Amino acid sequence: VRIIVIGTGIVGGSFIKLLSLRTADLIRDFGIRPRLVAVADEYGAAINSQGLDQERLLATIKKKGSVCHDPKFGNPGLTGVEVIRENDAEVVVEATPTNVVNGEPGMSHIRTALTERKNVITSNKGPLALALPALLELAQYNGVHLRFSGTVGGGTPILDFAKRSLLGDQIISVQGILNGTTNYILTQMTDEGLPFDVALKEAQKAGFAEANPSMDIDGYDTAAKIVIIANWILKKRVTLKNVELRGIRNITLKEVKDAASKGKRLKLIASAEGGIQVAPKAIPIDHPLCVSGVLNAVTFTSKYAGEETIVGRGAGGMETASALLRDLLEIKNQLARINI
Amino acid sequence: VRIIVIGTGIVGGSFIKLLSLRTADLIRDFGIRPRLVAVADEYGAAINSQGLDQERLLATIKKKGSVCHDPKFGNPGLTGVEVIRENDAEVVVEATPTNVVNGEPGMSHIRTALTERKNVITSNKGPLALALPALLELAQYNGVHLRFSGTVGGGTPILDFAKRSLLGDQIISVQGILNGTTNYILTQMTDEGLPFDVALKEAQKAGFAEANPSMDIDGYDTAAKIVIIANWILKKRVTLKNVELRGIRNITLKEVKDAASKGKRLKLIASAEGGIQVAPKAIPIDHPLCVSGVLNAVTFTSKYAGEETIVGRGAGGMETASALLRDLLEIKNQLARINI
Repeated sequence: VRIIVIGTGIVGGSFIKLLSLRTADLIRDFGIRPRLVAVADEYGAAINSQGLDQERLLATIKKKGSVCHDPKFGNPGLTGVEVIRENDAEVVVEATPTNVVNGEPGMSHIRTALTERKNVITSNKGPLALALPALLELAQYNGVHLRFSGTVGGGTPILDFAKRSLLGDQIISVQGILNGTTNYILTQMTDEGLPFDVALKEAQKAGFAEANPSMDIDGYDTAAKIVIIANWILKKRVTLKNVELRGIRNITLKEVKDAASKGKRLKLIASAEGGIQVAPKAIPIDHPLCVSGVLNAVTFTSKYAGEETIVGRGAGGMETASALLRDLLEIKNQLARINI
Repeated sequence: VRIIVIGTGIVGGSFIKLLSLRTADLIRDFGIRPRLVAVADEYGAAINSQGLDQERLLATIKKKGSVCHDPKFGNPGLTGVEVIRENDAEVVVEATPTNVVNGEPGMSHIRTALTERKNVITSNKGPLALALPALLELAQYNGVHLRFSGTVGGGTPILDFAKRSLLGDQIISVQGILNGTTNYILTQMTDEGLPFDVALKEAQKAGFAEANPSMDIDGYDTAAKIVIIANWILKKRVTLKNVELRGIRNITLKEVKDAASKGKRLKLIASAEGGIQVAPKAIPIDHPLCVSGVLNAVTFTSKYAGEETIVGRGAGGMETASALLRDLLEIKNQLARINI
């Protein structure tokens, strides 16, 4: 399988590393030999249709800051869109940072790849939150796959679980904690009695929150994820603008304590039932959704199998990379089936 | 698809009902038209190669205690083994009660069906706990499938989750609460301060425990399930005799309270890592495994995606029937793929 990787940050870098770690067992267990024909970042690209060496790519990124500085295969200044357009590959892995304002640069990468009839695997929530219904149509029109397991739950296979393990059942509603940073902050407020500002700073110090924490604490990250779930699992054609959204920025210690005094915990809960909502809610402490720290948890209510909850870490480079790899194996299975 | 159902208790009856409820959408969404060609219970069978009417079967069971009393299609005295041997069908659904001593009558039903090259779907843990490695070999030798999603977790797709959603990852260890009755008893002891005997009686009154509760409280049910998980997910060739087993019969209120005083809860935990164990353990209250009431929970530790937990009701007729149906759709998919 020829692969183009766009984005070499934590997720893209981990994906390249994971391919390198698992070369042997991917061939043995799945008959798949991934070949990285091009890797691009914001400064340029490295290109080799025979396949780039993963270790060398990782060393170049580490030492020189960009794959484009590879003396032999580097192409400084080349854009992701150009790389996608000008190189043959079955799969484009889009792993640039999430931007919920206009989805760029991921939006252009994904559109270009799908239009060029290349399958897309992405960990980028921005384009999906803004335009998932249109992107799925574009993929279908061009006869290729668009997969995004890593956008929700990191390595925890929340989307796959709902789509495949509940095959033959009917999922009626979904609710969950979809953002580890806000869960960490709320857990610190509850357990340590810290006010919001202090808990946020703790989270930043611990590396769980960005310098600009708005994506997390204002609920955009959570909203993007519930939009993806609503489209993929519940077949709702919705985007970010359909979400009724309230973050945790204004949560007081009193609200947290009031919940605790009733045997509950305040959590930032996303729900999709009739409408799509993101808002702080008090959850009974013995409900499976009531998980602590940076954990994510999602409860699916299905018609016949009842309520089922899946819990795991919602982030992490290697965890998310493992979701991208799962998508790759899945697409490879689909391609093999068509080729029979 | 022609189906033989053996066993018309809660699970078998619910499966017949579920087929009846879902006839329309199974055809529409999956192109599958299930035809019940024979249904057997301990008193005999009803047989019609053109397909038995599900409503009529359910009415006969309710009114006359056995399908064999159907005036037109009834065959009193016919055994399950005879029914499997003498009727053409693609799939046998084995839903007789679990027996962990010798696995009968399920063991004979499953062996006969596999030998006759019929695919088997079962909710019966007995034969699997005693002989899963051999039964999987028998299925493979005869070129048919043996599926058992409903044996672990009821409707909660624990086995499917591990097998499919974690595709491409490597599961290293498994631990979980696999029995709702013992979890209910331990929860009552913790929350209400009831001694074991009283909590057990409560569970029996609430319909969660059998008159003979040994299967649950001595840990055999849990042990059977971890054996199934170890074989199917971890590829260990083990049976019930490989399980180091301790139930909850001798748990004192003091042990429960000691755990609580340390921020933990006593749970009957099955684990498969090096060896296979079932024993009461104290679990931190904020660990995702620490679920209350009749809930089950399983944590999978995988090499790349980390720890993931799935939580749901572990029992229920309709829930387990939905797992049998999932297996049927899965087998139908496999058959379709071979026929291409």
